[in-house]
Amino acid sequence: MIVDANRKGVDSHGVVRLAHYLRRLENGTIKTNPEISVERLAPSVLRVDGDDALGHVVMTRAANETIAAAKETGVATAVVRNSSHFGIAGHYADLASQAGCAALVTTSSDSFLIPFGAATPFFGTNPIAYGFPTSGPPMILDMATTTIPYGKIDLAKKEGQSIPAEWGFDAEGHPTTDPNAIVGLHPVAGPKGSGLAAIIDVFSNLFVGAAWGPHIVKMYGHIDRPRKLGHFITVWDLEAFGEIDAFLHEIDTMIAELHALPRAEGVKHVYYPGELEAERAAHREKNGVPIADGLYAELQGLARELGISPIETMEKSND
Amino acid sequence: MIVDANRKGVDSHGVVRLAHYLRRLENGTIKTNPEISVERLAPSVLRVDGDDALGHVVMTRAANETIAAAKETGVATAVVRNSSHFGIAGHYADLASQAGCAALVTTSSDSFLIPFGAATPFFGTNPIAYGFPTSGPPMILDMATTTIPYGKIDLAKKEGQSIPAEWGFDAEGHPTTDPNAIVGLHPVAGPKGSGLAAIIDVFSNLFVGAAWGPHIVKMYGHIDRPRKLGHFITVWDLEAFGEIDAFLHEIDTMIAELHALPRAEGVKHVYYPGELEAERAAHREKNGVPIADGLYAELQGLARELGISPIETMEKSND
Repeated sequence: MIVDANRKGVDSHGVVRLAHYLRRLENGTIKTNPEISVERLAPSVLRVDGDDALGHVVMTRAANETIAAAKETGVATAVVRNSSHFGIAGHYADLASQAGCAALVTTSSDSFLIPFGAATPFFGTNPIAYGFPTSGPPMILDMATTTIPYGKIDLAKKEGQSIPAEWGFDAEGHPTTDPNAIVGLHPVAGPKGSGLAAIIDVFSNLFVGAAWGPHIVKMYGHIDRPRKLGHFITVWDLEAFGEIDAFLHEIDTMIAELHALPRAEGVKHVYYPGELEAERAAHREKNGVPIADGLYAELQGLARELGISPIETMEKSND
Repeated sequence: MIVDANRKGVDSHGVVRLAHYLRRLENGTIKTNPEISVERLAPSVLRVDGDDALGHVVMTRAANETIAAAKETGVATAVVRNSSHFGIAGHYADLASQAGCAALVTTSSDSFLIPFGAATPFFGTNPIAYGFPTSGPPMILDMATTTIPYGKIDLAKKEGQSIPAEWGFDAEGHPTTDPNAIVGLHPVAGPKGSGLAAIIDVFSNLFVGAAWGPHIVKMYGHIDRPRKLGHFITVWDLEAFGEIDAFLHEIDTMIAELHALPRAEGVKHVYYPGELEAERAAHREKNGVPIADGLYAELQGLARELGISPIETMEKSND
């Protein structure tokens, strides 16, 4: 699942995070033998307690249980607590699409988004994903609510570059071009992205009684404390709404018409949400996943520590 | 409900549309005596057929039935077909919040949004609304997926002003500063708004088998044909997730902390989604709703036609 992020070209959520997950697994803030529990609070409502397990494991369980519940009642929601970083939100929407379902997935993350009008961070970059099946790659919109992903700041830091002053504020609430001085990012589309970040915090945390906004345990800053993250997934079983074949026919036609639209100057292809990731995945399956030298060395080091052949690990990363 | 839009300051969806609704009621493309029907397709799934009624009437019925179903199963969704323009999406999220529920509401609209990378319109401006109760005014995010609302173009036309070249394209797919030449608007935040418009079309139309994108009957262009619009609402009963008082305590605290944040230069108040509309509504309840001269004359004309005292109509517009 971690490798799936790299496969789709979302390198910021792939093996680059492996050292972090392993560090938390080692210090016990992510449990290696968790007891994940699932309660049915109502016919269409599940509550999953992750017992501080790896977020990917918790959310896969939550997604599968929610799909099963949706197959009974048509629509179901799981709220998840005591989880940790779960990778890319779109992955769980993809799981639902493979089962002939649509999905809405949200997770909170630690505070880095500056609400519209404010001078300091409050919400996380808070991603939201929607997914639907098609006859080809699923239609999946997976977006963060900040203008740019945090990874771009990290890159500028590593390469000693300056950043545009519009990205965010320094600790004094002023625009900055120094990637080391930035403490928060602006929301995408001003009040719209800011409002969406709030809504995602409510779905992910307030529905399940988890900590929200600035009270969330930091991924890197609080390495000695379990994250206790909240997630949210709602699944709609398309079979409950009508013939799935009719749905697929319509969404396929919509995509074909989008592809046939006249294009803006210099544009080669009008993509539907998720299509670019599917294209990258197909390319990387054939050609492998490029790993930068620093990360390659880090992964080799991890492999040695764990007594795994690093070469074997790399080869496995393509499936 | 139409007046409620004006009350909240969303004048683009208020009495300015009254002449249009009346014209369609008169020509029969909106029925005056519709038979709205509701089917329960699954424990948590409803399908509402609007029989070409006024969208406000159809969607109020759909929202109330969905709230009732969510009270049974925890989560419920209604898909709506054969409806017409329903006003502001946030209104139905507000209805849910009054019942202690959260809601997601979408509707499609006729083609005016140019997908990211394309040169011509395909999706509508496609609004989406999320709502949650608080102890004060509900938290409601109600946003269109275009950069600016269509009303701004209308205003520029009436006042003979030029528009920024970034707003949209003319019929040849080129940027234009002429409000009379523009045929479509760009999505907010590029691929994010464009993807969201697609997702909203899928929820609103593909879930219920309604026409989508460029195939939707135009509000003004096809005045002689029923709109046959699709809508979508999902309602989460907060009582199914835990104590509603605990939820309200947390969301109230989140709002209080947002209000207490240091503010960006020149900003007087950090708003939560829906707060500005509630503030405007309180102001307009006291001071009345300002109606521009042209619109006032139009409303007086309509009142005369229908044998209603226009003054009485105006006074009623404040409650």
